[in-house]
Amino acid sequence: MKKDLQFIKEIQKEIILLGHIGALLNWDQQTYMPKKASKERAEQSAHLSLLVHEKLISNELFDSLNRLKNYNLSSDDKIMVNKLYKDVLKLRKLPKEFVTEMSKATSLGFDAWQKSREKKDFKIFQPYLEKIIKLKRQETKYLGFKNHPYDSLLDYYEEGMTAEELKKKFEKIKPKLLDLIHKIKDSKKYKTQNLVLMRKNFPREDQIELTKDVTKKMGLEETNFRIDLSEHPFTTKIGFNDVRITTNIRDKPLFAFESTIHEAGHALYELGCPEKHKFDVLGETPSLGIHESQSRFWENMIGKSKPFWKYYFKLFDKKFKLGNFEEWYFELNQINPSPIRIESDELHYCLHVILRFELELSLIDGSIEVKDLPKLWNKKMKEYIGIMPKNDVEGVLQDVHWSGGNIGYFPTYAIGTIYASQLYKRLKSKNKNLEKDISKGDFTKITKWLKVNIHQHGRKFLAEEIIKKATGEGLNIETYLDYLTKKYTSLYELN
Amino acid sequence: MKKDLQFIKEIQKEIILLGHIGALLNWDQQTYMPKKASKERAEQSAHLSLLVHEKLISNELFDSLNRLKNYNLSSDDKIMVNKLYKDVLKLRKLPKEFVTEMSKATSLGFDAWQKSREKKDFKIFQPYLEKIIKLKRQETKYLGFKNHPYDSLLDYYEEGMTAEELKKKFEKIKPKLLDLIHKIKDSKKYKTQNLVLMRKNFPREDQIELTKDVTKKMGLEETNFRIDLSEHPFTTKIGFNDVRITTNIRDKPLFAFESTIHEAGHALYELGCPEKHKFDVLGETPSLGIHESQSRFWENMIGKSKPFWKYYFKLFDKKFKLGNFEEWYFELNQINPSPIRIESDELHYCLHVILRFELELSLIDGSIEVKDLPKLWNKKMKEYIGIMPKNDVEGVLQDVHWSGGNIGYFPTYAIGTIYASQLYKRLKSKNKNLEKDISKGDFTKITKWLKVNIHQHGRKFLAEEIIKKATGEGLNIETYLDYLTKKYTSLYELN
Repeated sequence: MKKDLQFIKEIQKEIILLGHIGALLNWDQQTYMPKKASKERAEQSAHLSLLVHEKLISNELFDSLNRLKNYNLSSDDKIMVNKLYKDVLKLRKLPKEFVTEMSKATSLGFDAWQKSREKKDFKIFQPYLEKIIKLKRQETKYLGFKNHPYDSLLDYYEEGMTAEELKKKFEKIKPKLLDLIHKIKDSKKYKTQNLVLMRKNFPREDQIELTKDVTKKMGLEETNFRIDLSEHPFTTKIGFNDVRITTNIRDKPLFAFESTIHEAGHALYELGCPEKHKFDVLGETPSLGIHESQSRFWENMIGKSKPFWKYYFKLFDKKFKLGNFEEWYFELNQINPSPIRIESDELHYCLHVILRFELELSLIDGSIEVKDLPKLWNKKMKEYIGIMPKNDVEGVLQDVHWSGGNIGYFPTYAIGTIYASQLYKRLKSKNKNLEKDISKGDFTKITKWLKVNIHQHGRKFLAEEIIKKATGEGLNIETYLDYLTKKYTSLYELN
Repeated sequence: MKKDLQFIKEIQKEIILLGHIGALLNWDQQTYMPKKASKERAEQSAHLSLLVHEKLISNELFDSLNRLKNYNLSSDDKIMVNKLYKDVLKLRKLPKEFVTEMSKATSLGFDAWQKSREKKDFKIFQPYLEKIIKLKRQETKYLGFKNHPYDSLLDYYEEGMTAEELKKKFEKIKPKLLDLIHKIKDSKKYKTQNLVLMRKNFPREDQIELTKDVTKKMGLEETNFRIDLSEHPFTTKIGFNDVRITTNIRDKPLFAFESTIHEAGHALYELGCPEKHKFDVLGETPSLGIHESQSRFWENMIGKSKPFWKYYFKLFDKKFKLGNFEEWYFELNQINPSPIRIESDELHYCLHVILRFELELSLIDGSIEVKDLPKLWNKKMKEYIGIMPKNDVEGVLQDVHWSGGNIGYFPTYAIGTIYASQLYKRLKSKNKNLEKDISKGDFTKITKWLKVNIHQHGRKFLAEEIIKKATGEGLNIETYLDYLTKKYTSLYELN
C-alpha cells in the first residue's frame, strides 16, 4: 500500500510539474513570444501534453489505483485516490486513435475558426466544426452517460452537475431576466441614458497603474503573482507560488480595470489552494463554475458595486477628472444590449450563456446540425438580447470554445455568476460592516473569508458541496435574480 | 536502417524540444518569474533535465546508433550519427549515482557560492568546491583521456581542443600582452588619462532605445528575437525561430549597449544555424569558443572600432551631448586594470582567462588544492593584472562557473576572442569597403558573411575546422596580438 501510495503521489507531482511547464509555454506564447516561434511552440506544447497523457493512462498508474481502492486509507488519501481514479478512468475510455483524431480536428478547427473570422464567413469553419461535433458525439458514447449525453462532457468542467438541472434553472431565469430588461427598456432613465464620462480620455499608463493598485488591495503580492499584457485577458498557474494574470488596454476605458479584477479573483483562488496538496489532485480546483464564482464575485459583486466605487471614484476622478460620482456609477452599470458575450452587461450576461447552452445541448443530442447554427444563433439572439448580429463574427463565430472542442464549458460562466451572488449575500449577512469596509478600500476580510470558505478546500469536495458549506445552499437562482432585481430596480428607478 | 534513422531523428527532435522548453524555464526565471516560484522552478527544470538525460542514455538509442554505425549512410547522416554517438557514449560513461551526486554537489555548491559572496568569505564555499573538484577529478577518470585529464572536461565545451595546445599558446600570449600593457602604462597618455564623458548622465530609456537600434542594424528582427532585462545578460534559444537576449542598465553607461552587441552576436549565430538540421545535432553549434567568437567579434572588432563609432557617435551625441568624438573613442577603449573579468578592457581580458585556465589545470591534475585557491588567485592577479583584489568577491569568488562544476569553460572565452580577430582580418581583406560600410552603420555584408562562413555549418565540422575554412588558419594568436598591438599603439601614441 505504502509503495502504491508513494507511486501515485510521485506521478501526480510529475504530472503537475509538467502541467505548470505547459502553462508557462502558453503564458509566454500569449505575452512575449516572437511571432515566428508559434509553429515550434505548438510542437513543444503537444509533446508535453502527450507526456502527461501517457502518464495518466499508463497501466502502472491504473493498477496502483485499483489496488489502493481496496485498502483502508486515511480520509484524504481515500478522496485523492477516488478523484484520480475517476480522472484516469475517463481518459482510459477514449481510444488512442480517437484522442489523436480529436487533437488534429481541434488544431485544424482553431485555424479554420480564425480564417472564418477574418473572412466573416461561418461556411469556412462549418466543415471543421462538423467534424468536431461528430467526434464529440462519439466521445459521449465512449464516456457513457445516464440521462443526457451532454452530461458526460459537462463533467469535464463541472463535476456533479447535469444538463437536466441546468435546463430547469435556466428555463426559470430566462423569463425573469427578459421581464426585468423589458421594464428597464420602458423606463424614462433608459430612454435618456447616454455614455459621457466613459468617452473621456483615459491614458494608458494611468489605467495600468490602477490595475496594479486594485490587485494589491485584493491581497495579491508581487512575490508570487504578476500582471502582463496579452490580446485576451487570462489567468494561469505556473507554480504553486507563481500565478499570473494578463490584461489589455482597449477602447472601453474600464476594460483593463474590470478584467483585472476578474482575473485577480481567479488568481486568488489558485493561490489559496491547500499547500499540503500542491502536488496532488486535491490541490486542484473542483470546477470551472466555482472558479468563475470567484472572478465574477470580485468583478460584479464588488467591482461594480456602489461601496467599491465610493472608494475608487476618488482615485479615478483624480486621474481622469470625472466629476460626478452618481453619473459615473450609473454609466458603468447601465445596460447596453450587445451581440458580444464578453462585452455584455450584468443583466444580459446569463442570456448569452443560456443561448449557447441550448445550442450545445441540441448539437450533442443530434436534434440540430452544425449547418443550422448561424440561423438559430441569430434567432435566439434576437429573442434573448433583442439584437441581430451584423455578421457571423458578431454572432456564432465570436467564441473560441467550440473550435477547441470545448462543449459543456459555457454553462460554467452562468453557474459562477449565480454562485457569486450567493457568496455575497452570505458574506453580507455575516459581516455588518462589509459595505463600510469596501467603501474604505479594505477588502481584507473578504479575501480571507473566500480563502477559508472556498479556496482552502481544493478539490476535496464537489463545487456545489463547497458552496453549500459556505452559503447553506446549492446553486440558487433566486438569490441571483433577487440581487439583479434590487440593483437594477434602484438603478433605473423602476416602480 | 531506415527505422533506426527515423528513430534517432525522432528522439533528437524530442530532446531538442525539451531542451528549448528548459531554456524557456530558465529565461523566465531570470526575467519575469515571481521570487517565491524559484523552489518549484528548480524542480520543473530538474525534471526536464532528467527526461532528456534518460532519453540520451537509453539502451534503445545506443543500440540504434551502434547498428547505424555499420550502415552505409549519406554523408550528413553519417556525421550526425557520429556526433550523437560521441555525445551518448560520453554520458553513458558516467554512472547514474555519479550523475546524481554531481547534480546535488553543484546545486548545493551554487547556494554556497552565493552565501560565500554575501559574507565575502571563500571559506564558506571551500568545502563545497572541494567536493565538486573531487567529483570532477573522478569524472575525468570515467571519461578517459590521452594526455591531460583536463582534456576530457574541455571536450564538453571545445570539442577537438587540448590543454597542451592552449597552454602553449597562452604561454606565448602572456608575455606579449604584459609587455604591451607595460609600454602603455609608461606612456604619457596613460598617465594623464581620465573618464569624463563616461561620467555624464545617460538616461535609462535612451540606453534601451540604443540597444534596440543596434540589434536591428545587426540584422535581428522582432519576428524571431527579443530583448529583455535580467540581472546578468545572456542569450538563449527557445526555438529555432525564437532566440532571446537580455541586458541590464548598470552604472557603466556603455554596459547595456556593449553587452547587447555581445549577446546579439550570439543570437545571430543561433538564428543562422541550418534550418534543415533544426531538430538534430548538426543544427547545434560546435563549441563555446566559436560561439564566443561571434559575440566578441561584434563586441570588440566592430563595437569598439573607430568606424563603428563614427556612425554611432552621432546618435549618442544627440542623446547624451558628448561633444568630442576622439575623446569619447579614447575613453571607451582606454585600459583600466580591473580585478573583475567581465569588466575588463580588451587588453587584460585574456590574462583573466589564462589565470583561471592555469588554476583549473592544476586543480584537475591535483598539483594544487581548493584551499590554495585564494592565495594563488591573488598572486597571479597581481602578476598578470597588477591588482590585488580587495576581498574574495573581487577575487576567486567572482565567477559562477566552478560552483556549477563547469571546469574547462573559461578558456573558450579566450579562444573566441582570438578567433574574432582572425575573422575580422579575413573580412577586411575580402572587402575593401568594410570600414566605410561600418561607418555608415551598414553591417549587412558582415552579417551575411558570418552566416555563410560560420553559422550555416552548424555542428557539421569542428570549430577550428570552420575557422580554417573561413580564414585559412586555425587558432592564430599572432593575428590576435597584431590586432591589439596596432590598436593600442595608435590609441596611446606609443613609439
